[in-house]
Amino acid sequence: MASIRDIAKSTGLSISTISRYINSSGYVSKDSAELIQKVIDEMDYVPNRNAQAIFNKKSGSIGLVIPSLVNPFFSEMATIIGNKIQDDGYGCVLCFTEDIPEKEEDALDLLKGYRVDGIIVARGRSVDKIQKLSIPVISFESIISDEIITVSADNYQGGRMAFEHLYEEGCRKMIHIKGPKGFIAPEERCKGFLDASADKDVAVEVLELSTDYLLEEDLDKALNQVDFRMYDGLFVFNDINCIHVISYLRRQGFAIPGDLQVIGFDNSYLSEMNLPRLTTIEQSPQEIAQVSYHCLKDLMDGTCRSTANRIIPVKLIRRDTTGST
Amino acid sequence: MASIRDIAKSTGLSISTISRYINSSGYVSKDSAELIQKVIDEMDYVPNRNAQAIFNKKSGSIGLVIPSLVNPFFSEMATIIGNKIQDDGYGCVLCFTEDIPEKEEDALDLLKGYRVDGIIVARGRSVDKIQKLSIPVISFESIISDEIITVSADNYQGGRMAFEHLYEEGCRKMIHIKGPKGFIAPEERCKGFLDASADKDVAVEVLELSTDYLLEEDLDKALNQVDFRMYDGLFVFNDINCIHVISYLRRQGFAIPGDLQVIGFDNSYLSEMNLPRLTTIEQSPQEIAQVSYHCLKDLMDGTCRSTANRIIPVKLIRRDTTGST
Repeated sequence: MASIRDIAKSTGLSISTISRYINSSGYVSKDSAELIQKVIDEMDYVPNRNAQAIFNKKSGSIGLVIPSLVNPFFSEMATIIGNKIQDDGYGCVLCFTEDIPEKEEDALDLLKGYRVDGIIVARGRSVDKIQKLSIPVISFESIISDEIITVSADNYQGGRMAFEHLYEEGCRKMIHIKGPKGFIAPEERCKGFLDASADKDVAVEVLELSTDYLLEEDLDKALNQVDFRMYDGLFVFNDINCIHVISYLRRQGFAIPGDLQVIGFDNSYLSEMNLPRLTTIEQSPQEIAQVSYHCLKDLMDGTCRSTANRIIPVKLIRRDTTGST
Repeated sequence: MASIRDIAKSTGLSISTISRYINSSGYVSKDSAELIQKVIDEMDYVPNRNAQAIFNKKSGSIGLVIPSLVNPFFSEMATIIGNKIQDDGYGCVLCFTEDIPEKEEDALDLLKGYRVDGIIVARGRSVDKIQKLSIPVISFESIISDEIITVSADNYQGGRMAFEHLYEEGCRKMIHIKGPKGFIAPEERCKGFLDASADKDVAVEVLELSTDYLLEEDLDKALNQVDFRMYDGLFVFNDINCIHVISYLRRQGFAIPGDLQVIGFDNSYLSEMNLPRLTTIEQSPQEIAQVSYHCLKDLMDGTCRSTANRIIPVKLIRRDTTGST
């Protein structure tokens, strides 16, 4: 690939002149500038970002750390954030954690190695390590410290809404399929659901899954522990699991919503693709991605006014898996 | 963040000694090495990858260029490849193209700027630019040149299988919903479907979509042009669109497979989530990701034996949207 040396050679100008032009870091005569640009175009030369990173003490890279892209909520969020990063001329260094703290720590070290200008960590677990980062960082969902902004949907309110919707639709024997321990979002969704049920003096059951990404047979095993004939309402902690559960229930001969009303959480594109279409609580990936990225940019620019957490409102999306028939 | 200067200061050793140790590029006494490592651990220092990129003439970065993560096939593929890149200690610079050639060219320039050690481009369209890259590159699906390895599922054979399966299940009035122009995979799937139908002297219809990511209302508009009562078999070019089409047909009152047998393409996780479960042609993201990444590593290591394209076999997955009842 063409290097700054090649440009110098072919223009007959010094490397320092070329470098001044490329980094607009000093005087270059109009004629030299034109000549350099002409040769750059001919050679299809692209400045070395690694050199510029050192020269400018800005890497031009932003790190995005997420568990995986299997959950469509994360693939939507990553697509929106990644495009914003790219459109602003930054490079997006993508790292997966698979929710494994050690893997997350290695990912953060990798991003430190890049001297990235900022990091968005989704569902981070290595709290100490994130706290110690001397890099602007935004945390999606996880609470890290008072200094670090957490962007999160209003999961507690969403849990309340899920109960209240099922209750209004006439459900009185409800069960919640809860996400795995150790993550704040499923805990908050569950707490909201339970608090709202207590307000109405309605007892509810909870089945907690051991992980977010159960293989179908393992999910079926977990579900086999429950006699769903005992219930008239079901709240599942996210859409992708909710759709698996509905598929299980229909294979068992349950009519949805006739025998059992079901509500999910996310409003990812999956929720509209299936029949019956999923009633769910929406946490908008557009809004979450937008707020997360803009907060990060403000931190990077030093224009961030407040480190208060940003709680994104959720909203009930009524479709066809609830509603007394 | 701790810098090599801080290490030098705190150890009382010279920057060049520290650098020799970090890059294992020369002699460092045992005592100095121990002292340096101790301070590195204390300061949680991570070497600057940008400096190492220049020093070693290897950036330690690999570029992954994909249209978007909305199609679950790409999100599965990106998750597998991204994890492999990360597990090998490389950084994954992710770029989106949204199938826009100009955006793809900017993405490739960005990766050139990083001096990435290799690139995997999925469904690339800027053929000239990819050809000119002086970086090891693997192309998924798109044919670039004889020198550049294309990894692709056997889309032609998959199209033939789709027809033959529907035919064996008794379909004689078939329609294919084809992906947008300008991409080789949907063209090949369509060609295979048409050739197989010609072999059996069965006339088939084709409806070509204008883009891969139609909004639901636009897809419905396209589908409204077709009187599906005229057909008994339907092949849709990928699973995500196939599931939308099935949802549309069921809203129109069609029984699947009773009135119309339907087969998709991909076998993405979506195909099992829905009821009825999707009969489809599998192109394994695991296998495609594996082969793509290993070919790239071989190119990077200079151990690549052949630039022949790698065609990944496809296979019929029978589920519940086909089968004469």
